[in-house]
Amino acid sequence: MTLSVSSINLRRMDHDWQIDIQTLLANTHIAFLSTVGEHTPETSMCPYAVLNGDIVLHLSGLAKHSKNIQGNQNVGLMICAPETADSSPLALARIGFTGKIEPVPQAEQTMYQQVYVQHIPDAKLLFSFSDFTLYRIQVDTVHWVGGFGKARKVPVEAWKSLC
Amino acid sequence: MTLSVSSINLRRMDHDWQIDIQTLLANTHIAFLSTVGEHTPETSMCPYAVLNGDIVLHLSGLAKHSKNIQGNQNVGLMICAPETADSSPLALARIGFTGKIEPVPQAEQTMYQQVYVQHIPDAKLLFSFSDFTLYRIQVDTVHWVGGFGKARKVPVEAWKSLC
Repeated sequence: MTLSVSSINLRRMDHDWQIDIQTLLANTHIAFLSTVGEHTPETSMCPYAVLNGDIVLHLSGLAKHSKNIQGNQNVGLMICAPETADSSPLALARIGFTGKIEPVPQAEQTMYQQVYVQHIPDAKLLFSFSDFTLYRIQVDTVHWVGGFGKARKVPVEAWKSLC
Repeated sequence: MTLSVSSINLRRMDHDWQIDIQTLLANTHIAFLSTVGEHTPETSMCPYAVLNGDIVLHLSGLAKHSKNIQGNQNVGLMICAPETADSSPLALARIGFTGKIEPVPQAEQTMYQQVYVQHIPDAKLLFSFSDFTLYRIQVDTVHWVGGFGKARKVPVEAWKSLC
């Protein structure tokens, strides 16, 4: 098969967003979680890790988001490149998810904890606190914005192949 | 009135969180909005400004959050210090709000637009796009986390006096 210059460029562009997602995940440690409270949705900040496409969170039972997910397991989550003096706040790379959150089953705790602490070393101490629970979000939708006007839905299987 | 050393320290601490909130607002330009979709909450990133305690957003009608707020005006929002190589992801200063979002009334557009563009100069061009709308969140609750273990509710009147 002979490739034209334009098809090479398209392949290159197609490749780029996948690399850009992996770069975002490697360089960020916090995510913004949406949960549904009694009267209103709420945003909270949570350090995160990723394992086999699941978003891994370690939440305090004292925090409002933990109470909210008792009532409604549906959550949204966004990971965004941190703003800098050189970046436009309109064009920051970010990836958004929706999915259901659940405690990590006992049999899988070790694996999830290992991946989480590897990405968030400061959290190691918190695993000795009894009020913290390890959760995973099994994602239903993935939406990538690579910059201004560069948005695409990412099929869940394609997302899983990246992380 | 004679002040003891401890009361001076308490006043100093009390003052600090207010300065810290103002510093966070001055140094950040993006916020994370929670809206309620058909089946699930969703997080999105929005550049923001503040006017008289209202959070000011400028949203595209094409974006999912704009559709979501047609169905439910209750929103959550968080502003967070950007992560850096030197900061712990557990201890980033952040402020969370809940409230109702509404389009800025026509008579107040000029004032809100001016404040928004002053904080987000790159957005100036977007005001010539017909599908963008200026919104304000009138906040009901304010929750400040100044770092690890430094959390407090902020009365709405106290919040309004800061910005």
